[in-house]
Amino acid sequence: MINGRPTPVGPPDATHSPRYVNATTFARLPRLDQVPRADIAVVGVPFDSGVTYRPGARFGPNHVRQSSMLLRPYHHMLDLAPLTEFQIADAGDIPVNPFDMAETIESITQGARDLLATGARLMTIGGDHSIAFPLLRAVAEKHGPVAVVHFDAHLDTWDIDFGQCHSHGTPFRRAAEAGYLDRDHCLHIGIRGPQFDKADLTADADLGFEIVYGEWIDDLGIDGVVERMRARLGDRPVYVSVDIDVLDPAFAPGTGTPECGGLSSRELLAILRGMAGLNVVSADLVEVAPAYDHAEITGMAGARVSYELISVMAAHL
Amino acid sequence: MINGRPTPVGPPDATHSPRYVNATTFARLPRLDQVPRADIAVVGVPFDSGVTYRPGARFGPNHVRQSSMLLRPYHHMLDLAPLTEFQIADAGDIPVNPFDMAETIESITQGARDLLATGARLMTIGGDHSIAFPLLRAVAEKHGPVAVVHFDAHLDTWDIDFGQCHSHGTPFRRAAEAGYLDRDHCLHIGIRGPQFDKADLTADADLGFEIVYGEWIDDLGIDGVVERMRARLGDRPVYVSVDIDVLDPAFAPGTGTPECGGLSSRELLAILRGMAGLNVVSADLVEVAPAYDHAEITGMAGARVSYELISVMAAHL
Amino acid sequence: MINGRPTPVGPPDATHSPRYVNATTFARLPRLDQVPRADIAVVGVPFDSGVTYRPGARFGPNHVRQSSMLLRPYHHMLDLAPLTEFQIADAGDIPVNPFDMAETIESITQGARDLLATGARLMTIGGDHSIAFPLLRAVAEKHGPVAVVHFDAHLDTWDIDFGQCHSHGTPFRRAAEAGYLDRDHCLHIGIRGPQFDKADLTADADLGFEIVYGEWIDDLGIDGVVERMRARLGDRPVYVSVDIDVLDPAFAPGTGTPECGGLSSRELLAILRGMAGLNVVSADLVEVAPAYDHAEITGMAGARVSYELISVMAAHL
Amino acid sequence: MINGRPTPVGPPDATHSPRYVNATTFARLPRLDQVPRADIAVVGVPFDSGVTYRPGARFGPNHVRQSSMLLRPYHHMLDLAPLTEFQIADAGDIPVNPFDMAETIESITQGARDLLATGARLMTIGGDHSIAFPLLRAVAEKHGPVAVVHFDAHLDTWDIDFGQCHSHGTPFRRAAEAGYLDRDHCLHIGIRGPQFDKADLTADADLGFEIVYGEWIDDLGIDGVVERMRARLGDRPVYVSVDIDVLDPAFAPGTGTPECGGLSSRELLAILRGMAGLNVVSADLVEVAPAYDHAEITGMAGARVSYELISVMAAHL
Amino acid sequence: MINGRPTPVGPPDATHSPRYVNATTFARLPRLDQVPRADIAVVGVPFDSGVTYRPGARFGPNHVRQSSMLLRPYHHMLDLAPLTEFQIADAGDIPVNPFDMAETIESITQGARDLLATGARLMTIGGDHSIAFPLLRAVAEKHGPVAVVHFDAHLDTWDIDFGQCHSHGTPFRRAAEAGYLDRDHCLHIGIRGPQFDKADLTADADLGFEIVYGEWIDDLGIDGVVERMRARLGDRPVYVSVDIDVLDPAFAPGTGTPECGGLSSRELLAILRGMAGLNVVSADLVEVAPAYDHAEITGMAGARVSYELISVMAAHL
Amino acid sequence: MINGRPTPVGPPDATHSPRYVNATTFARLPRLDQVPRADIAVVGVPFDSGVTYRPGARFGPNHVRQSSMLLRPYHHMLDLAPLTEFQIADAGDIPVNPFDMAETIESITQGARDLLATGARLMTIGGDHSIAFPLLRAVAEKHGPVAVVHFDAHLDTWDIDFGQCHSHGTPFRRAAEAGYLDRDHCLHIGIRGPQFDKADLTADADLGFEIVYGEWIDDLGIDGVVERMRARLGDRPVYVSVDIDVLDPAFAPGTGTPECGGLSSRELLAILRGMAGLNVVSADLVEVAPAYDHAEITGMAGARVSYELISVMAAHL
Repeated sequence: MINGRPTPVGPPDATHSPRYVNATTFARLPRLDQVPRADIAVVGVPFDSGVTYRPGARFGPNHVRQSSMLLRPYHHMLDLAPLTEFQIADAGDIPVNPFDMAETIESITQGARDLLATGARLMTIGGDHSIAFPLLRAVAEKHGPVAVVHFDAHLDTWDIDFGQCHSHGTPFRRAAEAGYLDRDHCLHIGIRGPQFDKADLTADADLGFEIVYGEWIDDLGIDGVVERMRARLGDRPVYVSVDIDVLDPAFAPGTGTPECGGLSSRELLAILRGMAGLNVVSADLVEVAPAYDHAEITGMAGARVSYELISVMAAHL
Repeated sequence: MINGRPTPVGPPDATHSPRYVNATTFARLPRLDQVPRADIAVVGVPFDSGVTYRPGARFGPNHVRQSSMLLRPYHHMLDLAPLTEFQIADAGDIPVNPFDMAETIESITQGARDLLATGARLMTIGGDHSIAFPLLRAVAEKHGPVAVVHFDAHLDTWDIDFGQCHSHGTPFRRAAEAGYLDRDHCLHIGIRGPQFDKADLTADADLGFEIVYGEWIDDLGIDGVVERMRARLGDRPVYVSVDIDVLDPAFAPGTGTPECGGLSSRELLAILRGMAGLNVVSADLVEVAPAYDHAEITGMAGARVSYELISVMAAHL
Repeated sequence: MINGRPTPVGPPDATHSPRYVNATTFARLPRLDQVPRADIAVVGVPFDSGVTYRPGARFGPNHVRQSSMLLRPYHHMLDLAPLTEFQIADAGDIPVNPFDMAETIESITQGARDLLATGARLMTIGGDHSIAFPLLRAVAEKHGPVAVVHFDAHLDTWDIDFGQCHSHGTPFRRAAEAGYLDRDHCLHIGIRGPQFDKADLTADADLGFEIVYGEWIDDLGIDGVVERMRARLGDRPVYVSVDIDVLDPAFAPGTGTPECGGLSSRELLAILRGMAGLNVVSADLVEVAPAYDHAEITGMAGARVSYELISVMAAHL
Repeated sequence: MINGRPTPVGPPDATHSPRYVNATTFARLPRLDQVPRADIAVVGVPFDSGVTYRPGARFGPNHVRQSSMLLRPYHHMLDLAPLTEFQIADAGDIPVNPFDMAETIESITQGARDLLATGARLMTIGGDHSIAFPLLRAVAEKHGPVAVVHFDAHLDTWDIDFGQCHSHGTPFRRAAEAGYLDRDHCLHIGIRGPQFDKADLTADADLGFEIVYGEWIDDLGIDGVVERMRARLGDRPVYVSVDIDVLDPAFAPGTGTPECGGLSSRELLAILRGMAGLNVVSADLVEVAPAYDHAEITGMAGARVSYELISVMAAHL
Repeated sequence: MINGRPTPVGPPDATHSPRYVNATTFARLPRLDQVPRADIAVVGVPFDSGVTYRPGARFGPNHVRQSSMLLRPYHHMLDLAPLTEFQIADAGDIPVNPFDMAETIESITQGARDLLATGARLMTIGGDHSIAFPLLRAVAEKHGPVAVVHFDAHLDTWDIDFGQCHSHGTPFRRAAEAGYLDRDHCLHIGIRGPQFDKADLTADADLGFEIVYGEWIDDLGIDGVVERMRARLGDRPVYVSVDIDVLDPAFAPGTGTPECGGLSSRELLAILRGMAGLNVVSADLVEVAPAYDHAEITGMAGARVSYELISVMAAHL
Repeated sequence: MINGRPTPVGPPDATHSPRYVNATTFARLPRLDQVPRADIAVVGVPFDSGVTYRPGARFGPNHVRQSSMLLRPYHHMLDLAPLTEFQIADAGDIPVNPFDMAETIESITQGARDLLATGARLMTIGGDHSIAFPLLRAVAEKHGPVAVVHFDAHLDTWDIDFGQCHSHGTPFRRAAEAGYLDRDHCLHIGIRGPQFDKADLTADADLGFEIVYGEWIDDLGIDGVVERMRARLGDRPVYVSVDIDVLDPAFAPGTGTPECGGLSSRELLAILRGMAGLNVVSADLVEVAPAYDHAEITGMAGARVSYELISVMAAHL
């Protein structure tokens, strides 16, 4: 027992049991059904029927899990051991229907609701970005409109793709329209490259987003980005959504719509770390497409980003 | 209940739940701890410290599991549904110590003993071929000396590698010396390519092995190979050991010591099927090295070979 | 002019202009808009929203085109120069909507109708196998119910996938139900591996299909397979549908649901050649998923299969 | 009509027609023969017989085209929509002879002349760097000696390779000798790594080049590099030549002579953007070797660099 | 000493020294400068400026060497230990000039002459197939016109490629014209796929070649092929030239102009073995292009083919 | 002769002899047995039995050699031509036993001793990091306790892995305990990512190490890192140990335990260059695992790092 709570079950000691033995859950953490409750639940959503270019993120959750085995418990920058001081657990995957977006949105919403109802925060691994809409729905039901910080090369506030209102290009517009977002406190970080239309930027601003463009990173510096981010998020409940394509393709080739000129993983991790102290209520990591990965570098980036988000969430518990 | 036994728990229906959802066990079968008992236990041994060339088979068990998701329940050639008419379950991995061959041999022996003691037959996924020695030990303890049919490009009856008596080149010599083999009923299938020394062939014969060389396959035909195999194995309890490199590198690039001129997967599956009716008491599939695989073709070959071996074992239950 | 028809425009002479120069159409043939008419139109359908496992066949048409540049005009086994004695042309891609199966079925039907109306036969490159349903609709509208010879590892006569009636597992059931198939003259070649359920085989037979199992190939021999095929097809108008996964994964790793134990490309080409003399009215080649290909070997297999089908169609002109 | 000129034909709307449909030209722009004239012509030169290490850039033009499908019309940093406000068109490939450098130099010169004569600026995609010599010849014929800004890991002002004066290591020496360069206004950016000989640097300076070494980037900063570049180029007509190996191998593995310690794609794009306002009369992007690429990251970098160069050229129209 | 000759120096004992230690020569055999003389010299020709499609065979010699480390001394089918009973040595690479075909032809001729003058037979590793012409020149100078058995998917008796008479498509025409071939005793094995023109086959016959088409293999069987081959070669001095693309792309993806429907490596090795007893005076293995290889399967096929050729040569010593 | 010493033998002139010809030694330098003596010996240690996750670094030495062929003699930042002004030679590989850590430690120690006794400094290429212990032993025997600067993502001062005291996670603890390190002058650079336990950091400090964390690089800047490094090393004899995983996986995917957020190769090279003037007595480069590399980018990074270390050593000669 620690402080009246059961001592968390962490991963097996990697200096005794090799990390590739019985390696099925995120970071070899216990399954959710093996512990009484979890502070943070890692959950997969293997759905990619919302993509407009390269598919394959349906295999993302297991790929990130397989790539997470080298994660270790203690975070020296935050002086915190998220994997052993807190109960983190792997909740498996939420059911999806690759042929039915509407049904899947309902299923994800319900899956997320059920997990949130246990008191756990969610670290969701996608899947394409269309899953952010139902996740935000469930989170907003619990916390009210949330401040969203969205790391991505792309706005994802477009309106319609191929005649459909739900795709991986539209979740934040739909979420804004539905009232899930705290519109004075949302921002995108890492947006870059060519846009479809100048009007998209205006529309995006109207939905309540500020933008820290990828092209600004060198001028602002990491500290500058963190400052802007914290100023925008304020003290609200924060939802973090990370599209792995916010990283440059050199750091994350295994994704569906790569965009040159992105962040390095060092930069991204530093910015995420810059959220320490904020009330991050849940987070997602999406768009890892393993068929385009090499030597698990994208999977490992996804696992490490998830670890950083878990750490930031744990730091506020 | 079927015949007084609980109805087996099979994999989820793949036309309702996509095969990449919650895909952590072999063929999405239940874990052994989720069922009362199993007819056949699939178990991993992620150990490759016995290799003499390319390492990496330590990642074999999970790679084969990930590559097994397309397997379906009904075997139309044997008119048998191994995955639903019998209880097959995934027993996870046996503990190993990559720095200690002796300790690992003990651990594998004990792990296999424990599983065999439940009445299950074993379908073991390696790992390198050194794991066959402790597996044969546990099997021989239960069944007495067994007839071994060994599919491989290499004899694996060498004596000493780099001064050590246990390696992936020696398990069948050590097992023969230890009395685990029924010496009048063992054979190799698929041996090919250059040998170290002519004397190795004599020594191999002295240990009780017949050889069906890979170079003979075209002349013998599949039926001829099956005939020889069945004649040699007779009606003894049979242990089957399949080194994936019995396949040509075109069919199984992801292995440690590939050898040109091997079997096609169609040939191998037909020969394995030719064991139907024999009392196969346990089996292994070894030497899948994922770092050299492409598009999971080796992993899928390993999964399919395992399925065929499971089917043959089930057919005798 | 040849026989009162314009001399066909073939590919540029590859001994003068390297094959990687201006290489955008299938075999560097003219675009359909560059010739008055075509005997055979090569057309792409980049749609893969019907897949149940690995997606990515949406990139198939261009991948097969890029892999077709080594094709040469003269077929020495048929003593025929399909690319120069006949007008073959590349019709580009038919529009698709990845988010709307129903709309895409209509679009493919209309696209195929329009091309067939010009008198051309179709060599369609997919895309996943769900595109066979609308292609068969358009073909049946023109020719009446057709004899289908279907090369595949899988039946594709299943009923429902994830609640939907149209997927890459159902086209031939839907086509049979709709009356597009000449039920006494259809067959599958290459079906293999485990099935979902024994009942699927009965249902398949009820729909009018005979099966030449992949596991029978070694016994029947190529000649035996061709004999059965020709006996079944008789003198009817034939539609040929080739799922590239009829090949073993060694020959075609770049596909969505690979199945070990398949045909070699030499075997498949010989069987296809065995159709010479039959009235093949159109054909498709589907399920090439480039993200899983290596060194274009799957793309080249797809291109070569298409060439063989074009040759067989040309031989009947 | 826009300002008395025909409204440019841009790429199809990617939210209606998926970007992988009919994807044969750069960014799905019209072919040059489909529009009355073009402001900028994208043209391929699939020639790599000048390479000294890894060949394969002959496949560069089509690879960059295939990797360009995600480009979108509006450039938010320059507030300009190059793909829709200007007529950009794909002119296909210029004929080459892989066995004859001299003939190919003539062919490239003539091909470039013809396109320049239409009033178009050229965005040429190679091919190896030897193609820069004939391109500069054609450009100098039209504009007189040009200021060259050359992005590369290597000087490419060497004299003789394997006894030949034309190779991918010599184009800028040959161009300087021929009077195509405005010697007081040329510079290299990104030169790094070991040199053959100190004397090469002196010779390079004698030819009129200044160098911004790759090793200086961290000290100078992007702004410092841009400042030096603009100071050197002045207000002259500028020709930009980008060897993709100016990027670090992490960002561009698919090239023939990679050199560690290079620029990131974010840095390169920012420097290219720093040319806005200059009179860039034509540009090339060379040395993309697809056989060494992974997941198109080099192809996409090449496409994005081309887009940036097109934007800078368009900004001056 | 063995029979008055120095005991040959073979490879280090692989059960004592791992095969990846000091692995720089073919099969870890001694360098030619480390032994007094060699029965057979393995020599590289890293030249690929004769290719018409994918380049890269310049890296073939070292790739095949690196892939040869698993070769073992004793050939059980021929009951012969080529690597230890005979002196085989690695002669390194012959100098080449990638920019000068004529100079390279002279250099290869001279290099081969010098080695042949020592009494060694040559096992040459290319490089592209253009190197066969100078090799045949040197061999014919020594032995007179030779019977050539040429394994390839392609005729390589074309006349002119891109205006040049020497390319990888022309060596056997040039050699025939020059009188290096014993025209009544030459044959191709494995020719397949579409041809440029029917006339090419007539021309080929006029040059003295018989053809065993790849499409005939299934009917003839290996024994039938061997019979035809031996009948054609008779008792003449034989030169064997193996283009690795005689194998199907499944077995040899790493080559420049792959052609579906080829031989398996098992078939090729059996046919080569069928030459035992013939006077094979020298041989080559060409067209291994490593950039397209995977897991060294092509390199290993090339190494194994070379081993078989060495064995056949040794068997006649 | 230069200064009474024989003129060094450098690599062949790459503008005359292509770099892929006779490419077997590091940078095509002479073998050690071809020169009277060497200033610096490049030596391989192909041993990876100390790894805890992905194996394969046994193939590192030859992979780095193959990836070193583009290195050129003159270092323009140091104004020094290390490859031609000094005698650098390739000493081949030191014998290892993959099944015996203790024997291998002795063998490496002896191999290093022998080379050091010739007066050469060592540039060792691994192999995994366990080889640093015997290397430090040999170096300390000659120079006394050395100041170690250790570039790595990981501390490598852990105590016990899987019950063994020697692994790739423990060399610097063992070396410190043995008195090989000058404890007031050692530091790690690049440590990052999660740790096992906070106590590991305390233990590390007790062993005499300072840490420049990877997470500090952006704040310190390269100059700041160099300053700290030089302050810590002082004027002591320095041993440099570079684990390639100090680089981010984008720059070095081919390694056993990659860690996101690492250095770029440009940063690492600049820091190494910052050692110029120090008395670097020997160095190693470890943990290149080729099976996970792509297009040799990790191999080239390893080769370039080795070149930089050779240059720094040469600068002090």
